[in-house]
Amino acid sequence: MIAEVITIGSELLHGLVRNTNLDMIAGMLGEIGLEPAFHSTVGDDAEHMGEAFRTAAHRSEIVISTGGLGPTPDDITRKVIATVFRRRLILDQAVLEAIRTRFRARGIEMPPINETQALIPRGSTVIQNRRGIAPGLHFSHLRTEIFALPGVPSEAEQMLRDYVLPRLRSLNPGLQSALRVVRTIGISESALSERLQGFAMEEPELSLGYIASTTGVDLHLAGSSRDPRLLAERLDRAERKLLERAGAHAYARGHRTLSEVVGEALLERGLTIATAESFTGGALGAAVIATPGSSRYYRGGVVAYSNDAKAALLGVSEAVLRVKGAVSAEAARAMARGARERLRASCAVSTTGIAGPEGGSEEKPVGLVYIGYSGADSETSERFLFGGSRAEIVARGCSCALDLLRRSIGAPPP
Amino acid sequence: MIAEVITIGSELLHGLVRNTNLDMIAGMLGEIGLEPAFHSTVGDDAEHMGEAFRTAAHRSEIVISTGGLGPTPDDITRKVIATVFRRRLILDQAVLEAIRTRFRARGIEMPPINETQALIPRGSTVIQNRRGIAPGLHFSHLRTEIFALPGVPSEAEQMLRDYVLPRLRSLNPGLQSALRVVRTIGISESALSERLQGFAMEEPELSLGYIASTTGVDLHLAGSSRDPRLLAERLDRAERKLLERAGAHAYARGHRTLSEVVGEALLERGLTIATAESFTGGALGAAVIATPGSSRYYRGGVVAYSNDAKAALLGVSEAVLRVKGAVSAEAARAMARGARERLRASCAVSTTGIAGPEGGSEEKPVGLVYIGYSGADSETSERFLFGGSRAEIVARGCSCALDLLRRSIGAPPP
Repeated sequence: MIAEVITIGSELLHGLVRNTNLDMIAGMLGEIGLEPAFHSTVGDDAEHMGEAFRTAAHRSEIVISTGGLGPTPDDITRKVIATVFRRRLILDQAVLEAIRTRFRARGIEMPPINETQALIPRGSTVIQNRRGIAPGLHFSHLRTEIFALPGVPSEAEQMLRDYVLPRLRSLNPGLQSALRVVRTIGISESALSERLQGFAMEEPELSLGYIASTTGVDLHLAGSSRDPRLLAERLDRAERKLLERAGAHAYARGHRTLSEVVGEALLERGLTIATAESFTGGALGAAVIATPGSSRYYRGGVVAYSNDAKAALLGVSEAVLRVKGAVSAEAARAMARGARERLRASCAVSTTGIAGPEGGSEEKPVGLVYIGYSGADSETSERFLFGGSRAEIVARGCSCALDLLRRSIGAPPP
Repeated sequence: MIAEVITIGSELLHGLVRNTNLDMIAGMLGEIGLEPAFHSTVGDDAEHMGEAFRTAAHRSEIVISTGGLGPTPDDITRKVIATVFRRRLILDQAVLEAIRTRFRARGIEMPPINETQALIPRGSTVIQNRRGIAPGLHFSHLRTEIFALPGVPSEAEQMLRDYVLPRLRSLNPGLQSALRVVRTIGISESALSERLQGFAMEEPELSLGYIASTTGVDLHLAGSSRDPRLLAERLDRAERKLLERAGAHAYARGHRTLSEVVGEALLERGLTIATAESFTGGALGAAVIATPGSSRYYRGGVVAYSNDAKAALLGVSEAVLRVKGAVSAEAARAMARGARERLRASCAVSTTGIAGPEGGSEEKPVGLVYIGYSGADSETSERFLFGGSRAEIVARGCSCALDLLRRSIGAPPP
């Protein structure tokens, strides 16, 4: 089955806004063995959008669009669909009432402009939006199924999960394709590829990709077959190889994050944590709480951006700050110790470093980072020298801190 | 003139790799007053790629493709162009010699596989690649100019700069286009569009787009003209209108962030700040330090994720926590006050709320958020009820906290 994604929005063509919906939709379609053959992007222009829908309906059997369902005059997806597929727009009273209720729940009267969102092309099914206002639309045109979803990623994702995927699963019984992901940290793409030499020859039916980011290097293993059992066996075997060769650098399978892996291990062990941050400014705590339920193990943290905050709020000694400096292994350990004690946690991690672009010196250049760990029985610190932008140095620092925590508390291998 | 960009590569459809070529091409076309009307992505599949080229040649006057010009078997752009546009592939001896010379300059003999890169569709012009091996192609089909460039961004960029832009400039003399951005916060897309009612009628030559995200609603104002002075005047006038009607909700022009706007105002006034965070877990501090040089005004913060951390590290009274609860206006103000005092800052902002998905109640539902501010002379708090995912609620909370800070310290209008 040929699937096509249309992402709508002039800002996507200007190159100003990152188009994340394709990634999300491609990932979700992958779960049911589909991958888009075409991806089109058009601006908020009726003629161009009409042309994109016409082309897609002609060449593809599944069309998923995102965007243009909002209440403002540049949101014209409903109108374009009505024109291209010759379906009159009808004010759907039930949808209108649902929108009014949504606004009331937030303590606001529905602005009149939002009434347009209850205009539904005749014969289409309304897809409920549990996270926002704009309803989605589904209808068939000849042999093509068309799903129009809102542009807000979380809303589109919920509709895909609740409505679109179940529909498509029932339509696509044939070729299965699957993707496995092994996530690693603390090893470079080239070092990893040396460990994996010969893998492509051993597993010629599968394809292996390396995706490097601030959270480490992910290995993407893809394959397809008409025999789902064979495919699963093949992927299982290859995945085991990847995990073996990546060793302790492998921290997760699938899309689980370091924060989730660490959170689960903390819960299992009945441990609590605290954070002490300097150059990451709170981003480490934010990474910890990105995992739902983190309040069960995260006690909190201190962002000691200034030197006297390190002394006052974390009890780092003036001597350490004066002799070794705030960016040092000693300061990192003292910060972690201070956070653990003051927040009465089982253990703590800390970050101190120079994120740049200014503030570096020959001795302590931009990108120099120390991560500290303090537990009941042990204390350690690790030194890193990162490249990249300020934001990348902050993100890498957080990943390395979570990784030190993972290894220190002995999280189980994935 | 209608321009279309085709990006080629299966990895782009898997959503695994960021598609940066569109941004680059859109930016460069913008320099000569063009903006793409369509962007299509296809995998390394002859049939789908053929369909994409046929569609593009039919609906657009300028087609720029990237990718599929390498030497490996999955690089099939040359072949597809030959088939779709009925042009025989001919081995171009001059191109072959140029490729051989390139390899020799690197001290390598040309691998036989690279010979395919010298196959040129009859009647097309070869675009020199000064940064790599793969030559680009240019030919006309009926009234459409087609440019096929390599997928490596730096190589495609050089060809655009040296060959494609000069060609297009001669086809499209004079037309200039420009984009202005006005960023707002604290007002919904629908409320903003009500304030801007009639704007489209008043400024028929310009187009206005609304981009909503967790940092508020951005207004994108685009226009084009053959007269750059007229265009600038028109945009200036319209931008002033947007700023007026958005009022205090407008916080920036262009791509400046709330964090930058607040940071600049703090520096100008010689103020320092601290943060006190509960449900945002450090994300507010991370937003503050995203601005380079923030160490000059950010003293640090406390992440008081647990109730006893709110009491111990911020001095929030047991009575407030017991009677009003941790998610309350009183707690928000007390947290800000505690952070301001303990970090000896001029002022502080705080966040407390329920990010979900669990932890909500009828009285205090998921999405309920209080933001607090404490300065030398005044204290305030604001209440919000956000929709969206956990991550969106955290991000919105941070934006609203920065916005309260912006208004409290009296940052100048943009």
